[in-house]
Amino acid sequence: MGWNTTVLVGQSGGPTAAINSSLAGVYETARSLGANVLGMRYGVQGLFDDKLIDLDRQLGDPVSLQLLQQTPSSFLGSCRYKLPDPAQNEEPYQRLFKLFAERGVGAVFYIGGNDSMDTISKLAAYGAREQSPIRFVGVPKTIDNDLEGTDHTPGYGSAAKYIASTVAEIGRDSSVYDLKNVTFVEIMGRNTGWLAGASCLASQRNAYCPDLILLPESPVTEDALMERIAELLEDMKSVVVAVSEGARRPDGTLMCEAPTGVTKLDAFGHEAALSGTSRYLATLTAQRLGVKTRAIELSTLQRCANHLASGTDLQEAYTLGGVGVRAAFEGLTGKMPGIVRRYSQPYVVEYQLADVSAVANKERKVPREWIRGDGMGVTEKFRQYAKPLVRGEVSSFYVNGAPHHISPLVIGR
Amino acid sequence: MGWNTTVLVGQSGGPTAAINSSLAGVYETARSLGANVLGMRYGVQGLFDDKLIDLDRQLGDPVSLQLLQQTPSSFLGSCRYKLPDPAQNEEPYQRLFKLFAERGVGAVFYIGGNDSMDTISKLAAYGAREQSPIRFVGVPKTIDNDLEGTDHTPGYGSAAKYIASTVAEIGRDSSVYDLKNVTFVEIMGRNTGWLAGASCLASQRNAYCPDLILLPESPVTEDALMERIAELLEDMKSVVVAVSEGARRPDGTLMCEAPTGVTKLDAFGHEAALSGTSRYLATLTAQRLGVKTRAIELSTLQRCANHLASGTDLQEAYTLGGVGVRAAFEGLTGKMPGIVRRYSQPYVVEYQLADVSAVANKERKVPREWIRGDGMGVTEKFRQYAKPLVRGEVSSFYVNGAPHHISPLVIGR
Repeated sequence: MGWNTTVLVGQSGGPTAAINSSLAGVYETARSLGANVLGMRYGVQGLFDDKLIDLDRQLGDPVSLQLLQQTPSSFLGSCRYKLPDPAQNEEPYQRLFKLFAERGVGAVFYIGGNDSMDTISKLAAYGAREQSPIRFVGVPKTIDNDLEGTDHTPGYGSAAKYIASTVAEIGRDSSVYDLKNVTFVEIMGRNTGWLAGASCLASQRNAYCPDLILLPESPVTEDALMERIAELLEDMKSVVVAVSEGARRPDGTLMCEAPTGVTKLDAFGHEAALSGTSRYLATLTAQRLGVKTRAIELSTLQRCANHLASGTDLQEAYTLGGVGVRAAFEGLTGKMPGIVRRYSQPYVVEYQLADVSAVANKERKVPREWIRGDGMGVTEKFRQYAKPLVRGEVSSFYVNGAPHHISPLVIGR
Repeated sequence: MGWNTTVLVGQSGGPTAAINSSLAGVYETARSLGANVLGMRYGVQGLFDDKLIDLDRQLGDPVSLQLLQQTPSSFLGSCRYKLPDPAQNEEPYQRLFKLFAERGVGAVFYIGGNDSMDTISKLAAYGAREQSPIRFVGVPKTIDNDLEGTDHTPGYGSAAKYIASTVAEIGRDSSVYDLKNVTFVEIMGRNTGWLAGASCLASQRNAYCPDLILLPESPVTEDALMERIAELLEDMKSVVVAVSEGARRPDGTLMCEAPTGVTKLDAFGHEAALSGTSRYLATLTAQRLGVKTRAIELSTLQRCANHLASGTDLQEAYTLGGVGVRAAFEGLTGKMPGIVRRYSQPYVVEYQLADVSAVANKERKVPREWIRGDGMGVTEKFRQYAKPLVRGEVSSFYVNGAPHHISPLVIGR
């Protein structure tokens, strides 16, 4: 009494260190139930071109499946494609459902963030309207941790672990000379400070670091920031500031945008693109406070550093993939499995299902009471929230000194 | 019949992931011989202010000593101080030797790179002139791997392992969308390409990465580079280029400098400081080839990422510290222990002593025959050289999900 069907699985949005663990969870659970599993190359976008791969050929042996979970980024490739409103343009839906019928597809799993949940929500609604038996389930993934319907998202814990570990190391590096200095570490997060906040986990006994954290949720003026840094420099030699790329001023403008009335120029003398919050603040601090400064952008390293993945994160990512398959197997559609936290201490979670329509296109922010009164740091509540998510070290398989990854057999780099 | 003396140990120059292992090697070996060990805070610079700490208090227990070896950066602090020519200004020497006499110092160990060897060379020469019994020994350290007198330098292997692992992960990240793109990864190295070259170790079966490597030793024109990238993009979706910060043109100018006749401006419209080889090339490539580009600076992460240290590197760093102490114990002065490689396969090394005067202020470059014919990559010879140096994973002690470090008891951050 197996699940005698074909299921499709795709990955969408930005890469993470954990998204391939969710793929493993989907694949292994669907296979265990008897389904045949096809992977979409480059998400829904590749699906239009019938770019499907047989996952048994790629992942059919235990070694490949294990390697998959220590490979960062999206094994199947990704896209940033948004389905149109079916009332405006039904054609993409007709094409996709025709393809599903031809392939005998019984369920579609899409691993991604807010936009991916929008895709699943639209497909599920269209399927319901057409009385299609196909089940559509989203599996949450985003380093940004900004999804509703879950306590936290797979990918966040690993990014947080990378950020905490790296900021701890940067703190060490920056304190090496007997010289006043300020280091700005730029962390991803356009609209939410979940990632920048995780830098609080870098603090250790006798070594508090970072000293300040700037979150998009908590705007500050340059003047207030400079004053606070100057105060810190009275007692300390080295100040470390973790800044969200989306750190902003009370008037809502981004720090990386020019203050009103000033045109910022790029290296070619053209008006500058939005980038470089840390570079801007480092230059400003050097000018105003006359100290040595440095800007460090963690860049894509924070989302693709599987070598420093959180064991908790990879395990939960895998489980959520499997729970999503279970939901479809049990006949549900338009759902996203999420995590409910029972306790932080001991860390206990349960899995539940949310309606994707209630999750799609929303953005969860860091609560006000988790941000320090001065707006330049996070409170103990944030730390207690984030701490269990970075726990657990993963034992990777190294070949010639570098972590080994799996490659799709049919690869178009 | 112990070594009934006091020895001083200091760290100098840029931080690395391995310099504290050398400190551990100096400390444990000197203690095993019976000496008392004092650490200089902030190198020779701190010594002038008598900033000395009792290392027994800091490192006297095995747990502290083990934590020290997984702590990046310089535990004792560092400086970039150059002793004057004693013929021009003898005063600093008189002060230091007076201090050595007051403290009953029998030997001085200085862990650092070219500049530090200059310090040891001058102190040894001055000591010989004054018929001082004090022994001066340098212990090599630099991620740049540009020291004479040794096959390679402690710190290089760990930086190389970080670069190889991270570039492998960036390669994964950059291939995720079905979109032509070029990623420039900027790696330290003003004058030598040892670090950038190590990115060749990121290549794996079925996943060759990076595609091009630019080294300071092998100048290229922007035109040649663009032509090569365009060729690669005909067959591939994603191209990864590892660039030394010191990559340059055939006329000797740095890539990060403006081409002749063009003034580069910074974000404030001022003439730009020297920085941003990868940003310059990413902007240029986007303009000339019309593809998506990204610039990633590995920045200080590559020198302070102890969490990804090479086991081989840490072990050799420790041993070199100990061999340096042995040399002083045996009565030698003005020496630097170095590594001689017997074989790469199996990897076998021996330790020998070089004269610091023959090492100081020199710079070892990547040999021409280790650079690819087109000047944009390294050969198999380079790979065979670098491969054993990144081998071995270190089992770190994690607390709350982040690697734990040791802090000096008397800490001035």
